[in-house]
Amino acid sequence: MGKKAVVLLSGGMDSATAMAMAREEGFELYALSIMYGQKNEVELEKAKKIAKHLGATEHLIVPLSLKIIGGSSLTSMESPVPKGRSIEEIGKRIPSTYVPARNTVFLSVALAWAEVLEAEDMFIGINALDYSGYPDCRLEYIKAFEAMAHLATKAGVEGRMQLRIHTPLIGLRKAEIIAKGVALGVDYSLTHSCYDPLPHGGACGECDSCKLRLKGFQEAGLRDPITYG
Amino acid sequence: MGKKAVVLLSGGMDSATAMAMAREEGFELYALSIMYGQKNEVELEKAKKIAKHLGATEHLIVPLSLKIIGGSSLTSMESPVPKGRSIEEIGKRIPSTYVPARNTVFLSVALAWAEVLEAEDMFIGINALDYSGYPDCRLEYIKAFEAMAHLATKAGVEGRMQLRIHTPLIGLRKAEIIAKGVALGVDYSLTHSCYDPLPHGGACGECDSCKLRLKGFQEAGLRDPITYG
Repeated sequence: MGKKAVVLLSGGMDSATAMAMAREEGFELYALSIMYGQKNEVELEKAKKIAKHLGATEHLIVPLSLKIIGGSSLTSMESPVPKGRSIEEIGKRIPSTYVPARNTVFLSVALAWAEVLEAEDMFIGINALDYSGYPDCRLEYIKAFEAMAHLATKAGVEGRMQLRIHTPLIGLRKAEIIAKGVALGVDYSLTHSCYDPLPHGGACGECDSCKLRLKGFQEAGLRDPITYG
Repeated sequence: MGKKAVVLLSGGMDSATAMAMAREEGFELYALSIMYGQKNEVELEKAKKIAKHLGATEHLIVPLSLKIIGGSSLTSMESPVPKGRSIEEIGKRIPSTYVPARNTVFLSVALAWAEVLEAEDMFIGINALDYSGYPDCRLEYIKAFEAMAHLATKAGVEGRMQLRIHTPLIGLRKAEIIAKGVALGVDYSLTHSCYDPLPHGGACGECDSCKLRLKGFQEAGLRDPITYG
C-alpha cells in the first residue's frame, strides 16, 4: 500500500477525478466529506459511492454546519441559487453560491485528520479555469494555507509532517478533467454537480455548476451520463 | 457601537479575558464557541454565561466533531488526560491533550462568520508563556493564518476585508492575565479550565490546565473563585 493521502471528496466530478489521480499516483485514499448544510446534500450519497468505486480505505463524513453561519445561497432556503446564466457571465464576479471560507474550513478539518493518520499529502479538486471565481480555488491561496499548516500541527513542529496540498486539476479545463477521469476509469454517473437538484435528485441543468459541467462534456465530445430535469 | 469583532470563547479564563480586552478596545462582541466533543463540554455552559456577562451581541455555538477525527486525550474516552504533572514538566513537550489542528479549525469557522458579519477583527486568547506548548498557540502560526485568510475570502479579494487576528494575551504570564481580567471586571467564577472535570462539574486540580490556572492565581495573590474537587 502506498502513502496515505486525505482527499476532499464533495461528490462532484472534480473531486472524484482528483481522487482517481491520487490513486493513479499510488496513494492510499482517505476520503473526507463535509455535511455543511448544503442544498445539494444529495452529493454526499454520491460521495459514498465514489469513495467505494475508487477503493478508498476509509470515508469520513464530518457534520459541520456552515448553514448556521449563513452568507451563501448554497445554504440558505431564503436565497435562490442563480439560474440560466451564460458561460460568459459565470466567473465574471463571485456569485452568491460562494460559501464564506468553505475551503479553509474543509482543509482545516482535512489537516486535523491528516495529522491523526500521519498522512503528509492532501488532495483538493479545485480548478481555476472553468470555475465560478471563488477566491479559495486559487493556487496562491492553497500555497498560503500550506505555509500556515506547516506551523499549525504537533507533527509539523516535531518534524514528522511536511504537508503537501495537491491540486492536480488547477490548470485543467473542464473537458480535460473529464477526459482524464474517463481515462482513469471514473464512472461519472456516480457524480453530482447541481447546486439545486430537483426533489428526486435530478440535476437542474440551469445553475452555474450544471452549465460548466455540460459545457465540459460537450467540449470533451462525450455524453454526460447523469439525469437532467 | 464600535466595530464588530469575532471572539473565540472556550469558556476558559484566557478567552474570557481576551473578550474583556476586546470590549475595552470598544469592539462589538460576537462570541464563537465550538462543540467539538471535548471531555470538558461543561465549558460551553460557562461560555454562555461569560458571553452574557461581557455583553456579547451574539453567541454562536457551532457543533463540529473533532472527536470522530480523534488523536487527542481531550476527546477520547479511551485515553486519559495527564494528571499530577509539575509545572516544570508542563510545556516541555506537547502533551496528549493537544487536539490536532484545533485552532486552525476554530479560526477557519471564525473567519467564515467574520466574513458574513463584515467584521475585520478576530480575537483569540492564546498565550505562549504559561501554556502547554501547543504549536497553534504561537504568534508565527497566527501570522501565517492571517496571511492565508487575506487570500481566502470573497470580501478579502474584493478589498472589503483586511483581517486582523488579535492575540492580546500572547506575551502575558497567567498571573498577569488574571490581574488584567480582574481590573476589567471579569468574573472568573464563571470560567472553567479543567480538562477532566468531576461528574458534578468541579475542577480536578490535577490536570495541566488546572495546575497552570492555580499557579496563576497564586502568583497574582488572588483566590481562585471556582470549586476544586
